[in-house]
Amino acid sequence: MCPAIVPEGQKRGYLVPIGGAEDKEAKPTILKRFTEISGGKKSRILVIPTASRLDDTGRMYQTLFKRLGAGEVNYTPITSREDCDNPEYAALCDEATGIFITGGNQLRLSTILGGTAVAQAIRRGNAAGVHIAGTSAGASIMAQHMMAGGPGDSGAREGGATLAPGLGLTNSAIIDQHFSERNRIGRLLSAVAYNPYLFGIGVDEDTAAFIDSDNVIEVVGSGGVTIVDGSGLKYSSLSQARSGEALGLLGLKLDILHEGCHYDLNTREAFPPAEDGQGHCNISVGD
Amino acid sequence: MCPAIVPEGQKRGYLVPIGGAEDKEAKPTILKRFTEISGGKKSRILVIPTASRLDDTGRMYQTLFKRLGAGEVNYTPITSREDCDNPEYAALCDEATGIFITGGNQLRLSTILGGTAVAQAIRRGNAAGVHIAGTSAGASIMAQHMMAGGPGDSGAREGGATLAPGLGLTNSAIIDQHFSERNRIGRLLSAVAYNPYLFGIGVDEDTAAFIDSDNVIEVVGSGGVTIVDGSGLKYSSLSQARSGEALGLLGLKLDILHEGCHYDLNTREAFPPAEDGQGHCNISVGD
Repeated sequence: MCPAIVPEGQKRGYLVPIGGAEDKEAKPTILKRFTEISGGKKSRILVIPTASRLDDTGRMYQTLFKRLGAGEVNYTPITSREDCDNPEYAALCDEATGIFITGGNQLRLSTILGGTAVAQAIRRGNAAGVHIAGTSAGASIMAQHMMAGGPGDSGAREGGATLAPGLGLTNSAIIDQHFSERNRIGRLLSAVAYNPYLFGIGVDEDTAAFIDSDNVIEVVGSGGVTIVDGSGLKYSSLSQARSGEALGLLGLKLDILHEGCHYDLNTREAFPPAEDGQGHCNISVGD
Repeated sequence: MCPAIVPEGQKRGYLVPIGGAEDKEAKPTILKRFTEISGGKKSRILVIPTASRLDDTGRMYQTLFKRLGAGEVNYTPITSREDCDNPEYAALCDEATGIFITGGNQLRLSTILGGTAVAQAIRRGNAAGVHIAGTSAGASIMAQHMMAGGPGDSGAREGGATLAPGLGLTNSAIIDQHFSERNRIGRLLSAVAYNPYLFGIGVDEDTAAFIDSDNVIEVVGSGGVTIVDGSGLKYSSLSQARSGEALGLLGLKLDILHEGCHYDLNTREAFPPAEDGQGHCNISVGD
């Protein structure tokens, strides 16, 4: 599904895929930043804990965002497709300034949310300026083509990635998470090989890619964000490869971004942190 | 140490780093090819099992190369630096048409062979046309800057790779092995970051990079060979990074080669397999 159309005169909200295991105590930089862009004291943050099977995930994030200075924080106890068509929950999405999708299982997210009123509200909201963050499974679900699985080693292989339709908040990239920690470059390369027009974005744990309305990424957190650009691919063996066979992929570009680096998904250019050390001061704070 | 100088009118022998776990039974393509380029029936192959602590490694490869059609096959029971200064073993190197260095521990290789008569004979031999193959540890030792170790995840980090001086048969690249299987792209990227003039070459298991005298790689085997080219790097955070910190590396090129692909280390160009399916027919057979 393509991203919802931005209404006249408005700007798309941030998309903030987080690689999982974001720091919640000592240095909660990512969650604090998300709270700030969502409006700080004036924010209304909605937590969607559907990916998780743990009962207290919604409440835990509610407490956390409150502590980080959020205004109002709600969570939806959505566990079924029926819940997703509950107008009350869709209304909570419509009223939010920021929506946070927790980790868990992204196929649980896509099978429960897909095509429901809540999914439509999230898509419509982001197009109208609501910021959407998601960690782990909540990061992968954002894409039109969602990374759903793949084997564990770091080689690019035929059948090395399973894709499923996601929420379609971006159609620029496939997003993977727990990236370096779980050695997922093989499945990301395998996924990019399917159709190299898509970027592969691999987000490490405790790291986030803040993607702004101009499609420019800024990295926040302690790990890296790996950008695989297959647009210059001059040879791929995928279409002739046998099941599980190692792929040949010639002409990939690779940028590994750390905190403060930027990447422009429109121009395919990477930028180092600003030299004054104020690398991410240009993430605009909502009001 | 720089590669030994090629004597007037001669050509350097192949360098054949193998990623470990090469097929020895069902489809021993790599070892067969090495036997062929070393002269087939007229070959004199010397196995150096020093990296391994297993007593029968030398004899096992001797039997194997014989079965694959080699002429004469010897192995040296080198286990100490003293052994390496035994003129008889250096003479075996001088007489060989192909030298095969087994797997095990590459620091055992570098600490035992380094600077001895045997190391000099291998270096001199390769410059004069002797083909040198090495699997696993035997692959890494070939480089001037040898990959000696690094942590297990696939992220590029400060301190993410330990280098040690190797045999210096090539000064174009750092060579890593068991590459996809052991998720070593992080340590290869970390190593390339030290000084991006060096290519990073990551060789998967049951896969070999046949590097000819013109510095052109051809891939043989069931896995991939990953080439990291850092020459276009426009930003690296390495020099300012704290211990263990995730690195920013902007502007890397990545080529993943499968069987039949070529890579020219001089021009930094990758080539797909030949369309007639005779991808590696141009590996010249010795006489």
